Amino acid sequence: MSTKPVIQIYDSTLRDGAQGEHVSFSKCDKLEIAVLLDKLGVAYIEGGWPGSNPTDDEFFQEASKLKFQYAKLCAFGCTRRKDIRVEDSPNLRMLLESGAPVCTVVGKTSPWHVERVLETTRAENLAMIRESCRFLSEAGREVIFDAEHFFDAWRLDSEYAKAVLLEAVSGGASCVTLCDTNGGMLPIDIMEITKEAARIIPSDVVLGIHCHNDSGVAVANSIVAVRSGAQLVQGTFNGIGERCGNANLSTIIPDFELKTNFSCLPVGHLSLLKPASDFICEKCNMRPDLHAPFVGSSAFAHKAGLHVDAISKNPMTFEHVKPELVGNRRRVLISDLSGRGSLSMKAEEFGFDLRDARIGNAGLEELKRRENAGYEYESAEASFIVLMHRVMNMWPTYFTLDGFRVIIEKRSAQDKVVSEATVKLTVNGQSQLTAAEGDGPVNALDLALRKSLEVFYPALRDVSLIDYKVRILESINGTAAQTRVRIQSRDSTGVWDTVGVSENIIEASWIALVDSVEYALFKKHIEPSIHDEGKKQ
Amino acid sequence: MSTKPVIQIYDSTLRDGAQGEHVSFSKCDKLEIAVLLDKLGVAYIEGGWPGSNPTDDEFFQEASKLKFQYAKLCAFGCTRRKDIRVEDSPNLRMLLESGAPVCTVVGKTSPWHVERVLETTRAENLAMIRESCRFLSEAGREVIFDAEHFFDAWRLDSEYAKAVLLEAVSGGASCVTLCDTNGGMLPIDIMEITKEAARIIPSDVVLGIHCHNDSGVAVANSIVAVRSGAQLVQGTFNGIGERCGNANLSTIIPDFELKTNFSCLPVGHLSLLKPASDFICEKCNMRPDLHAPFVGSSAFAHKAGLHVDAISKNPMTFEHVKPELVGNRRRVLISDLSGRGSLSMKAEEFGFDLRDARIGNAGLEELKRRENAGYEYESAEASFIVLMHRVMNMWPTYFTLDGFRVIIEKRSAQDKVVSEATVKLTVNGQSQLTAAEGDGPVNALDLALRKSLEVFYPALRDVSLIDYKVRILESINGTAAQTRVRIQSRDSTGVWDTVGVSENIIEASWIALVDSVEYALFKKHIEPSIHDEGKKQ
Repeated sequence: MSTKPVIQIYDSTLRDGAQGEHVSFSKCDKLEIAVLLDKLGVAYIEGGWPGSNPTDDEFFQEASKLKFQYAKLCAFGCTRRKDIRVEDSPNLRMLLESGAPVCTVVGKTSPWHVERVLETTRAENLAMIRESCRFLSEAGREVIFDAEHFFDAWRLDSEYAKAVLLEAVSGGASCVTLCDTNGGMLPIDIMEITKEAARIIPSDVVLGIHCHNDSGVAVANSIVAVRSGAQLVQGTFNGIGERCGNANLSTIIPDFELKTNFSCLPVGHLSLLKPASDFICEKCNMRPDLHAPFVGSSAFAHKAGLHVDAISKNPMTFEHVKPELVGNRRRVLISDLSGRGSLSMKAEEFGFDLRDARIGNAGLEELKRRENAGYEYESAEASFIVLMHRVMNMWPTYFTLDGFRVIIEKRSAQDKVVSEATVKLTVNGQSQLTAAEGDGPVNALDLALRKSLEVFYPALRDVSLIDYKVRILESINGTAAQTRVRIQSRDSTGVWDTVGVSENIIEASWIALVDSVEYALFKKHIEPSIHDEGKKQ
Repeated sequence: MSTKPVIQIYDSTLRDGAQGEHVSFSKCDKLEIAVLLDKLGVAYIEGGWPGSNPTDDEFFQEASKLKFQYAKLCAFGCTRRKDIRVEDSPNLRMLLESGAPVCTVVGKTSPWHVERVLETTRAENLAMIRESCRFLSEAGREVIFDAEHFFDAWRLDSEYAKAVLLEAVSGGASCVTLCDTNGGMLPIDIMEITKEAARIIPSDVVLGIHCHNDSGVAVANSIVAVRSGAQLVQGTFNGIGERCGNANLSTIIPDFELKTNFSCLPVGHLSLLKPASDFICEKCNMRPDLHAPFVGSSAFAHKAGLHVDAISKNPMTFEHVKPELVGNRRRVLISDLSGRGSLSMKAEEFGFDLRDARIGNAGLEELKRRENAGYEYESAEASFIVLMHRVMNMWPTYFTLDGFRVIIEKRSAQDKVVSEATVKLTVNGQSQLTAAEGDGPVNALDLALRKSLEVFYPALRDVSLIDYKVRILESINGTAAQTRVRIQSRDSTGVWDTVGVSENIIEASWIALVDSVEYALFKKHIEPSIHDEGKKQ
C-alpha cells in the first residue's frame, strides 16, 4: 500500500452480485473469482451465504483451505430470528461452520421494517443484533454489521438508527456498514447522514458504505460517503447485483486511485483491473458493457474526427486518465491499425515476444485476424498458448482433420432427439472414420473425437469436458453474427479453458474442443504419434 | 409545469449521442426521436451538426417544418475558425441555414487547448467566441455557448475560463454551459467550480451543465451542478455517446422529478419515460440495458426469497420509487434463491392463481418437474406465460411438430461448415416439410420454422431473434448434464425472453424457439389458423 489513506474494498460479487438477474455462478466459478480478487488485492471477499444453497456451502468448504495473500474471506448471513436463543440460530451456526474468518451479519435498522416485515418489537430487534454480533465475536470471528435500509431508517427515526449501530458495536462488531438497500439516495443525502453516523461511532470501529444503483449514483454515493467518514466500501465487480446492481467496484477503485488522495489496492495492482473485470464478465456469461468507465473496450475509443486529431497531438486532450493505468488501451475507431496492444501484453505474460522472427508477418496477420473475428483470450489461456505455438510453427501435429458431420434428429413428436457425430481424422498416417452418439451435438463430436484419438493417445481417457459456454457476438456492419464458445476441461492435474469462434456454433465448438484435447496432450508432454505433414483445421 | 423550480432538459441524443460507437441514425430515426422527445416535454432538442454530414442537413430541412409543443430545436456547431472573418465562417453560415431557432456554439476554454490544438493566441480565441455568439444572436437566434473542457480549464487558469464565459455573454449568449468534456470530474470538483461560475454570470443568463461518464458519475455530477447553480442539464437518452457516454437523461429526469424539489417535465409526463427510452434503444438498434435505473426491465425485479417475502407485504420495503411512476413495472424472478412464495407471486402477477382448479395436481407436478429439470423463469417471462396457459389447457395450438432434423457438416478440412435443417409441421391440417440453411444449426432451425409458419402467420416477419445464451447445468449424481438455452426475441413493440432445457442443446433451442414464436403470435392476439387436435411438442 502507498502512504495515502487507505480505503478497504469489500467485494460482494460472489454474494450480492449473485443476486443479479442472469447471474449464476458454479462453485468453480466462485473459487476462481475469489483467487483473482485476492491477486487484485481487495481487502475482503464475501463468498456467499452459508446455508442458503448447496453451491455456497461447497464453496466455503473449499475456500477455507485457500491461502489468500491480501484478502480476508467473509461469510454473509442475517441475525438470529426473533424469539429464539442465539445458540439455537441455524443462520449463525452455519456462519461459524463456514470456517470464514470474517462474518458479516445483516440486521434491520428501520423500525418500519422491524414492525412490518419482522413483525417484532424494536427492543427485540436490538437484542437480535447485539446478541448475534456477540455470539460471532466471542467465537473469535471478525464481525461486520450491515445496517439494512440505514438511510431510509435515519430519515424515519434517527435515534433508533443510531441505537442499531451502537448495539452492533457493543456486541463486538469491528465494522458497521451503512446500507442504501433500496438505492434511493442521492449524494447529498449520503453526505449528511454519513457524517452524522461517523460522529457517533467509536474511533476504533470502521465505518462502511454499501450502495445500490437504483438512482444511477451508487459510485458517486460511495465516494461521497468516504469523504464523509466511511473507510470501507462494499460493491461488486461490473456493478452486478439485483435490480440496477450494486456500487461498481470497477469504477470506484480507479476513481479512488486516480482522482482522490485515497488508495485501495496494493501499489502497482491497478493495471490488473480490466483483466479482472473481463474475467468476471466471462464467468457470469455476461456481455461486457463496452461503455463501462475505465474497463469498457470503448472507454478509450475515439470516433469524432476532431477528437482523433487532437488525440494524435496529445492523448490528454480528450482522455481523463491514461488507459494503461487500468490495463485498458486506446482505440481509434475505423482506422484501428494498432490492434496489437492487448495481445502483446498477453504474449509477454507467457514468455512470448511478438517481435520474434518465427512469428513473422503471417503470424501477426493471423493474430490480428483472430482478434477482429472476436477471439478473446482473457480467460482461455490454453487456446492462447496453442495459438502462439502455432504461429511460431512450434505446435506438434497430433492429428489432421479430414471432415466431420453431425446429425440431430427428432423423428416424430414422441421420439427423443438423437445426436450422432462422424469424425474423419488422420493419425499416424492412418485414416480413421469414427462415429458416436451423444446427449447433444457437441457431446457427440467430443465423444467421436476422443474415441478416435484414444487409440493413439490413451492419456486422453483422463480428460473430461466440465463446462461449456456460448455467447453470440454482436454483428458489425450487417455481417453474420459470430458465435464464441468457451470450453472448460480438466484432467487429474488441473483445469484449462479454450475458445473457438465461428459463424457456426458447431464449428466454434469443434475449434475449442480440438484446442482442449491437444493442450491436454501438450501439457502432459506427450509426443505426437507421428509428425504428419497435412494441415490441421 | 408544476410550481417547483424548473430545470431545462437539453437533449443531445441526436448529436452527441450519435457520436457513440455502434450508434448510427437515419434521417427518419432522427425525426421520429425528435417528435417523441417533444411529446415527452424536454426543453431543447439538439438535432445535429449542420454541415458535418448529409443526414444532419436533411434532418434540419424537415425538422424546421415540424411544430413542437414543448421543445425548441437546436443546431450545434463550433465557433468561427481562427484568423477569418465571422461572415466568412462556413460553420456559422450553416447554423443559420439550418433554420433552427437555437444555435449552440462550442468553443475552447482551456488555454492549453487553445495553444496546442487550435494553435492560436488566447486573445484570438476570445474574439472567436465573442464574435461567433454575436453573429448568431444578431441574426435573431437564441445562442447557447458550450464551454469545452471548462472544469479542466478552470483548474489550469480560472481567470481565462471566466473570461471565456464572459466573452460569450457579451456576444449575446443567453446560456453558457460548463462542459466536463473528458468526463474526468468527481462531484466535489463540479460543485466547487460550478458555484464559482454561477457567481460571475449575470443573473439573466442561464447556466448549463454537460457531463460525460468516464468516471461513472455523470448523473451525480449533473445533479450536483444543479444544486450549485446550474439551471439547464445537457445529456442523452440511455446515456449514449462517445467512450463511456453522456449524462443519462433517463436517470437524471426521474432523479429530479422524484427525489428533489426541481421539476423538468410537464406534469404527468414522467410515465412516458420508459417507453421513450425503449423506443430510442430500438432506433439505435441497441440491446436495452436491463439494469438501467428506472427504465431497465430489471430495475424493479426481485429475486431473493427474503426480499420477495417483504415485497409481498409492502412493495416499498425494497423499492425506492413506484415503478409505474416512470412507466415501468414490478417483476418477481423465479429462481433457486427464492422459495415457493415467488412462484405463486409470479403467477399472480400475470393473473394466475396456483390454486385454480384448471391447473390441478397434474399442472402443479409439471411446474415442479420443470423446476427440477433446470428451468429458470426468472428472466424468461414469455415462457412462463406460455407454460401457465399450457398447464391450464388455455394455450392455442398454433401448429404441431411432426419432427425435425439438423445436419452440420464439414466435408473436408478446407470446406466451410454447412448447416441444414428440415422441419415437419402440421398447420391447419396441412403437413409441411420445410428445409433451410443457416449460419449454424439453431439459425437453420429458426429459419426453417419461420419459413413454414410465415405462410400461415405473416405477422412473424416482424419477429427476430436478438440474443442466444447457453449454459450447461451441473449434472447431479452422474446423470447427463442439462443444457439451458435462453433466447431473446423482439418485434416492433417489445422484447421477450424464452427458455428451453434439455440434455440436447438443439432440443433445448427448439423448445425456446417455439415458445418465442408462439408468444409473438399470442401477444399480437393472433388466432391459430385452426385448432388442431394433435399434441404439440
